[in-house]
Amino acid sequence: MADVRRYFDLPSPFAMKRGGRLHRARLAYETWGTLTPARDNAVLILTGLSPSAHAASSADDPSPGWWEAIIGPGKALDTRRWFVICVNALGSCKGSTGPASIDPATGAPYRLDFPELALEDVANAAHALAQGLGIERLACLIGCSMGGMAALGYMLLHPGSVRAHISISTAPQAQPFAIAIRSLQREAIRLDPNWNEGRYDDAHYPEHGMQIARKLGVITYRSAIEWHGRFGRIRLDAEHREDDPFGFEFQIESYLEGHARRFARSYDPNSYLYLSRASDWFDMAEYGAGDVLAGLRRIHVERALVIGVDTDILFPLQQQQQIADGLTASGATVEFVALDSPQGHDAFLVDTERFGAAIARFMAAG
Amino acid sequence: MADVRRYFDLPSPFAMKRGGRLHRARLAYETWGTLTPARDNAVLILTGLSPSAHAASSADDPSPGWWEAIIGPGKALDTRRWFVICVNALGSCKGSTGPASIDPATGAPYRLDFPELALEDVANAAHALAQGLGIERLACLIGCSMGGMAALGYMLLHPGSVRAHISISTAPQAQPFAIAIRSLQREAIRLDPNWNEGRYDDAHYPEHGMQIARKLGVITYRSAIEWHGRFGRIRLDAEHREDDPFGFEFQIESYLEGHARRFARSYDPNSYLYLSRASDWFDMAEYGAGDVLAGLRRIHVERALVIGVDTDILFPLQQQQQIADGLTASGATVEFVALDSPQGHDAFLVDTERFGAAIARFMAAG
Repeated sequence: MADVRRYFDLPSPFAMKRGGRLHRARLAYETWGTLTPARDNAVLILTGLSPSAHAASSADDPSPGWWEAIIGPGKALDTRRWFVICVNALGSCKGSTGPASIDPATGAPYRLDFPELALEDVANAAHALAQGLGIERLACLIGCSMGGMAALGYMLLHPGSVRAHISISTAPQAQPFAIAIRSLQREAIRLDPNWNEGRYDDAHYPEHGMQIARKLGVITYRSAIEWHGRFGRIRLDAEHREDDPFGFEFQIESYLEGHARRFARSYDPNSYLYLSRASDWFDMAEYGAGDVLAGLRRIHVERALVIGVDTDILFPLQQQQQIADGLTASGATVEFVALDSPQGHDAFLVDTERFGAAIARFMAAG
Repeated sequence: MADVRRYFDLPSPFAMKRGGRLHRARLAYETWGTLTPARDNAVLILTGLSPSAHAASSADDPSPGWWEAIIGPGKALDTRRWFVICVNALGSCKGSTGPASIDPATGAPYRLDFPELALEDVANAAHALAQGLGIERLACLIGCSMGGMAALGYMLLHPGSVRAHISISTAPQAQPFAIAIRSLQREAIRLDPNWNEGRYDDAHYPEHGMQIARKLGVITYRSAIEWHGRFGRIRLDAEHREDDPFGFEFQIESYLEGHARRFARSYDPNSYLYLSRASDWFDMAEYGAGDVLAGLRRIHVERALVIGVDTDILFPLQQQQQIADGLTASGATVEFVALDSPQGHDAFLVDTERFGAAIARFMAAG
């Protein structure tokens, strides 16, 4: 299939928060719907760590997107009304420039020579894209998970650029539990001898490290309650068991293995390390003299919808409440929706009925 | 220091649940207090996966034990009244026979030739010890974490052997979230090339695998709330940072590293694998025709105290409630204590004030 993504060339050099510069960098993005002549109906989506810009199917690419149930004609993000843009994060590996991209200065992949990446860089790159599309002010900026952190940075660094905001299962700063999980994921990758300080290739690929990292991700993205209902203690059939005394025996183990295998080769390990570390670094308190709420208060949007899930152990509900409180204190009209979805952090990808309902209501009121 | 542990020789051969047999196996244990002539004041403690039998200091070994705050004269388990026994689990590596022990048939360590181990074997071995000490009926059987599962097996398999029971942060069956965590811990060890199908030595030791397993353990033993209060986003001083772009930067990372380093060489990796898998296998439903509560109803004790912690993600409070419900249905007088300690699964080792108060009250009422 042809590459139907669109590409946006970032200003070159593109200056980064921690001092680096990128030359001839670009972002991959996709759009749905039509931008009005007044350019006032744009909705920009910043994604979590792993998704691509393919959030929904289109005539050009009919394969289902990662938020297929939310985006489309008549859906929560109604593409008959809204011009929806989804961007692959700077530093990712789904078309945007990242550690696996060719460094024009050397003709070889950046690998660990990619500059230190912050979520503010992800935000600034996405803002440059919006500007490049002629959109001075987004009708709505949506951020999910890691993208929610980048969205907070976007609004803070570009005052007046966003009218309404939807914050989904994210955090105003990385807290130690999430840092611990991500640090361990990075360690599993780095300890894989095939990682080789970032100089792997297809034949020598840190597959085991990526699999452990992904399994740990999937475990923390979901909730104990959901898995109890879904998997219980169901055993694998004898023919699906390995001939190994400690091999997989329960369905939950093979479920994780399937997820990990699919992911390991489809995501660049160095991109994973860079974006994971960027998430640990993110802290709205930097903009509030050490106080998260003071940082959030410096954001100005008219309206915000903040959605969280009470079974999310990675981005706990208290952090969603904190975002809602901070944006309220900033003067925004804030709706805070706490869902009891059993799917934990991943609920926004799965419980699309309830997320869709909240989003649709918010978008209709705009 | 001399070895002050006591040893008990198990009946030989010792038949195991899944078909294996151990020859000349033994258990390490320690005791505090004095057994009455009527032998009616014995309190037996079954531990979690990693602790030794050294639960408290004594004249023979004045070093603090893992439950020092709970056991001793005038403490919750008052050794002026009770004869307290703590046993190192069969299959562990702290003096009891396990995979690192010498197989008398070959003169070499068992390693993976150790028979398949179930928590019912841990229970049966502990019961044989009590019998060997001339104790027909325990005044109280206490099980913490993995030891709590073994304790349920002990009471079910040896009716009339226990008068009162204290169940702490455990489970009547392994559920998929806990299985997923343990499976990933085992995988990290098994993927370490130095594990070498269990044939490691000091020079080629699966240190990285053990460290990842331990970090994952420590992460899931605690709670996000506690860590936020303790570590926040405190950075390491520059001199404690590694010269590595993805090296540790936050205090939480070096805290985990310290725990992991201390543990990696102090616990036998094969023991870890065996006891971890035994925990996954444990299921009271096996004794209730597929129904957990029916299995629990077959246990007979007079009184029980069931304690759980609402921040425990590994052994969630619902599972403690299930044990309390099942024991109540069996006819026992049950006190259920749900604590809101922030320390998660580890609270029984840390929040000894509240655990101690509940235990003291229960023991005094006996």
